[in-house]
Amino acid sequence: MNIHSQTEEPMTAAPPLHLTHAQSMDQRSAEILEGVRRAFAEKGFDGASMQDLARSCGMSVGNFYRYFPSKAAIVAALILRDLAEMEATFREILRSPDPLSGLRATINARIMQGDCEGEGQLWAEITAAALRKAEISAITTHMEHEIIGYLTSIFAKAKNLTEADARERYYPQAMLLVMLVKASAMHPAENPRAQQRLTDLLLHTVARTIDDVANDDLKG
Amino acid sequence: MNIHSQTEEPMTAAPPLHLTHAQSMDQRSAEILEGVRRAFAEKGFDGASMQDLARSCGMSVGNFYRYFPSKAAIVAALILRDLAEMEATFREILRSPDPLSGLRATINARIMQGDCEGEGQLWAEITAAALRKAEISAITTHMEHEIIGYLTSIFAKAKNLTEADARERYYPQAMLLVMLVKASAMHPAENPRAQQRLTDLLLHTVARTIDDVANDDLKG
Repeated sequence: MNIHSQTEEPMTAAPPLHLTHAQSMDQRSAEILEGVRRAFAEKGFDGASMQDLARSCGMSVGNFYRYFPSKAAIVAALILRDLAEMEATFREILRSPDPLSGLRATINARIMQGDCEGEGQLWAEITAAALRKAEISAITTHMEHEIIGYLTSIFAKAKNLTEADARERYYPQAMLLVMLVKASAMHPAENPRAQQRLTDLLLHTVARTIDDVANDDLKG
Repeated sequence: MNIHSQTEEPMTAAPPLHLTHAQSMDQRSAEILEGVRRAFAEKGFDGASMQDLARSCGMSVGNFYRYFPSKAAIVAALILRDLAEMEATFREILRSPDPLSGLRATINARIMQGDCEGEGQLWAEITAAALRKAEISAITTHMEHEIIGYLTSIFAKAKNLTEADARERYYPQAMLLVMLVKASAMHPAENPRAQQRLTDLLLHTVARTIDDVANDDLKG
């Protein structure tokens, strides 16, 4: 979400934050998103009230509502920020000489990092909410389509196919990779040895899935 | 979980749950669990109040509290019921001459059936709550251990290993199978063709994971 759009608020409402530099704006929006992330993780998507969420960012409820008129708007902001980060990574992979290896390394790093930042918890909340609320579902579906789009672009480059052909051909592989990363992030921490063995098998499954694309002979 | 019928309200604050006879798992308890399942699916784990949950079962709040002193107690009841159903299936697989084929067929059926009964939605709610609340986590961890136990029993029989050895050796495969079934149930419905292609790849991934166990030469 473009947090800067807050300056486009109606004239009657004073802009809530007088931040002149884009940098401090980014800093503040990162703090706000971190606050709501924490509040959702503590109380759950439905358990966290708009008041809880406002408080987690050190804002008044009225002010908070001007940034985020609904929880759906918050989820959209969180997701658009994650997408922007991912886009940078995917663009780098697409520029590399061996995009499938780059993709594998990126997914492996994501799986190995586990849920150290509470991402999995937040994802579990959003996944549950999306199955229940059409407006959240629309946002998560958009995110998933974007990620699938990046993945199939990488497959297109690796296999010398058009994006449309790659998407048509490798949609299931792309979706399975998304599912494996999500399932791994949402999996509660285990003892280190069990965790390591499960991680190894997940990486093996990711490798096989990407190898299926690499080894696909494009016939049939 | 044994739930007394609504007409058996205790006169005093006597403990409402006397978990003695499996046959008390009657029509009424199935209705109650179906009601709470629906309420959680509609409003979310935290969004559904005890009042919502009581109403969904056509019970007074006071009466409902006597059956379920907390949401954790409800989750425990739902999970114990699911486990009882699964146990019957797993026991049948263990009696069959080719338990790995039986396991594959059972997992395939589960994945192909998709989320037609709102199971995935409920699972997403419970997964999110478990990452946030220790008491829910204890219940879901228990369930996962039970399922992993059944899976490794099946692997033990197929590979002629002790249960302990099978568990030690194939824990990651068992956990990956659980993750694939859960991820598949939680995945929102897509258009039928995309859904079918993703399902095919999931079944292929399940087959490979079970084949890894079947083909393991038990050396090393």
